[in-house]
Amino acid sequence: MSEVMELAVRARRAAARLGVTSSSERDGALESMAAALVARSGEILEANARDMTAAQAAGTAPALLDRLALDETRLKAIADALESLAMLPDPVGEIVEGHTLPNGIRLSKVRVPLGVVAIIFEARPNVTADAAGLCLKTGNAVILRGGSLAVHSNQALTGVLASAAENAGMPEGCIQIVESTSREAAEELMGLHGHIDVLIPRGGAGLIRSVVENAKVPVIETGVGNCHVYLHEAADPEMARRIVVNAKCQRPGVCNAAESLLVDESVHAEVLAPILRELEANGVTIVGDEHVAALGAVRSVEPATEEDWATEYLDLKISVKVVAGLEEAIDHINTYGSKHSESIVTADYAASQRFLAEVDAAAVYVNASTRFTDGGEFGLGAEIGISTQKLHARGPMGLSALTSSKFVLMGNGQIRE
Amino acid sequence: MSEVMELAVRARRAAARLGVTSSSERDGALESMAAALVARSGEILEANARDMTAAQAAGTAPALLDRLALDETRLKAIADALESLAMLPDPVGEIVEGHTLPNGIRLSKVRVPLGVVAIIFEARPNVTADAAGLCLKTGNAVILRGGSLAVHSNQALTGVLASAAENAGMPEGCIQIVESTSREAAEELMGLHGHIDVLIPRGGAGLIRSVVENAKVPVIETGVGNCHVYLHEAADPEMARRIVVNAKCQRPGVCNAAESLLVDESVHAEVLAPILRELEANGVTIVGDEHVAALGAVRSVEPATEEDWATEYLDLKISVKVVAGLEEAIDHINTYGSKHSESIVTADYAASQRFLAEVDAAAVYVNASTRFTDGGEFGLGAEIGISTQKLHARGPMGLSALTSSKFVLMGNGQIRE
Repeated sequence: MSEVMELAVRARRAAARLGVTSSSERDGALESMAAALVARSGEILEANARDMTAAQAAGTAPALLDRLALDETRLKAIADALESLAMLPDPVGEIVEGHTLPNGIRLSKVRVPLGVVAIIFEARPNVTADAAGLCLKTGNAVILRGGSLAVHSNQALTGVLASAAENAGMPEGCIQIVESTSREAAEELMGLHGHIDVLIPRGGAGLIRSVVENAKVPVIETGVGNCHVYLHEAADPEMARRIVVNAKCQRPGVCNAAESLLVDESVHAEVLAPILRELEANGVTIVGDEHVAALGAVRSVEPATEEDWATEYLDLKISVKVVAGLEEAIDHINTYGSKHSESIVTADYAASQRFLAEVDAAAVYVNASTRFTDGGEFGLGAEIGISTQKLHARGPMGLSALTSSKFVLMGNGQIRE
Repeated sequence: MSEVMELAVRARRAAARLGVTSSSERDGALESMAAALVARSGEILEANARDMTAAQAAGTAPALLDRLALDETRLKAIADALESLAMLPDPVGEIVEGHTLPNGIRLSKVRVPLGVVAIIFEARPNVTADAAGLCLKTGNAVILRGGSLAVHSNQALTGVLASAAENAGMPEGCIQIVESTSREAAEELMGLHGHIDVLIPRGGAGLIRSVVENAKVPVIETGVGNCHVYLHEAADPEMARRIVVNAKCQRPGVCNAAESLLVDESVHAEVLAPILRELEANGVTIVGDEHVAALGAVRSVEPATEEDWATEYLDLKISVKVVAGLEEAIDHINTYGSKHSESIVTADYAASQRFLAEVDAAAVYVNASTRFTDGGEFGLGAEIGISTQKLHARGPMGLSALTSSKFVLMGNGQIRE
């Protein structure tokens, strides 16, 4: 049996036992896991140092190195997140609906764990603890598969977390990591239909595409956000400026940052110039159509290509397009957007309602920054990721996205006539 | 552009327009579709006669011929089902949850159509009308792909339904059928990631396996039911007999019929004999382990193989196993079952609770026949199918399984700090 298959068999066995643990047992395990991260920080940081040395030697970019690096402060923050998770209400066991059938059978639909969750992610070691905690909280066994850059960190973290959970009474195999970082191991994991109940990729567009292409198990797609802010002709110019600058500049490397700005032709001459100047002052590279270039508002406007409209820059760069009006804006967003987060700025009621109804995205906004699309901001407690698909969960996913349901029927001898 | 791709592009356009129709417009279209089936029954029945002639010439089995055949009465029943659908409440637009964020943004999570739904099914022409109606009801564009046996019937039905819907104001392309019944066309459909929001296979185990193996679009698996009835040592013998006979014999060809009977060793000698005799009297072939054979209760017990435990017979045949007790029964069900419907017969409270908690299935029963797993019986109104996966929907799926959600956020200039 291959390594991956062995993990899957062990995970299924663990899931069966996890499914009958109580919330307080699982919350106790989360607290033990948090304590273990602090108590055993030495071995985790040592493993992380090995990853950092190798990554530096390989000439890894500074931004990636920063995401890879752990220290006592970061470990403490990861441990604190596990403790917070222990405080959240448990969705498992919730009765979602129920009634008595005409024949007297009492039916209820009850939230249950999904079973075995696999998470494939890239170089951020904090995802290891985060994913392990979220799955344990919801009674799921988890199989993690991290990127090669963080291989030692991830193994050290998983080892510490799994042994803390098991010492706190959780079943052996509840938290596991695929040791091989080969492409074959990842593809085998994606193919284990019947063994993995859901696979969640967390990472860049390439990883997500590879999972969608190869997976035979159910997948929740997350993350890619080609988000737009659209300035309608009835937009308040000052509100427009604040929202665009916030959506683009406050944290450009995340999926809910704006990548594209649309503005109505009838007002673009007045509204756009101060916004472009402030973006430029914030170091944002501007690509745009001929109307934007013709404005001459900023030093440089690179001509936008078809590809720009479809690109998630994740950087201080924005594509800007002048549109004829609401209909063209909605068409453009539905054509090039990734159905993540889309915002209109307008004082016009009818325009706002039409935008909300016709734009096809996980989150649609009127007069607010796209940057709010986030489980924490939405008040969901913990966040597993942001789903950009329509099945099962859409938008920021809270703990309940890691659950399924079961119909429970209690009778006294009923048969079907 | 291929035929399938053209359908997909047209469906996406139709979905955008369907998404802004009102419930009453869609219900009106359903009524027009029902009327058209009756008014244009001649051409539908003529097309069906062509399929029947071809199927008979090809030596198709009588049971399949019966499922293929249409007549005025069956068409009227299909039309009536569309009219009933028009009477059901519309899940689209329902506000699932909502609150005001601390910064004043008003957030609501609203049910929206999935978008473009593809349904691949086998020879039953009634599925054509059923699927078209369910998708239209929920504001989804549908692409149907039926089996080759019913090709003329399906095209005639789709033509009548689509033109009735379009005449009633629904967008062109809201109901479409893939004309090619080639394997390539089906595989192309399964691969249209980004164009198809969900694919639902309705048919036998082979079809479902092929979809799971090949699909790159999100899938809802339906249907396969290897269901068990387990007679615990505290089972009432008379209740046990009635439930087993009902679960096996009342309609053996459907997914919620029992395929396997488990019985505790401590009571099998007394409980099993009368049940086996009644099953045999009902024409049921019995395969069993050595304990069952040793009973000598019936004329013939074929030895059960490993494969029998995993087989959905869909026929008057049952596998019977004597188990040591509750734990072995649960293990056996979780190993060989298809996570569809599972029932325990017992008068013991603790055993019932443990069975409900530990058996991993869409529907778990105490003291009732597995035959109740059905949208109608569960009171869900219409049924799209019975999901045997854990993502998105599990068990009988009502109209809401054909919806997704969208976060709608209304602000007045909020930006993220």
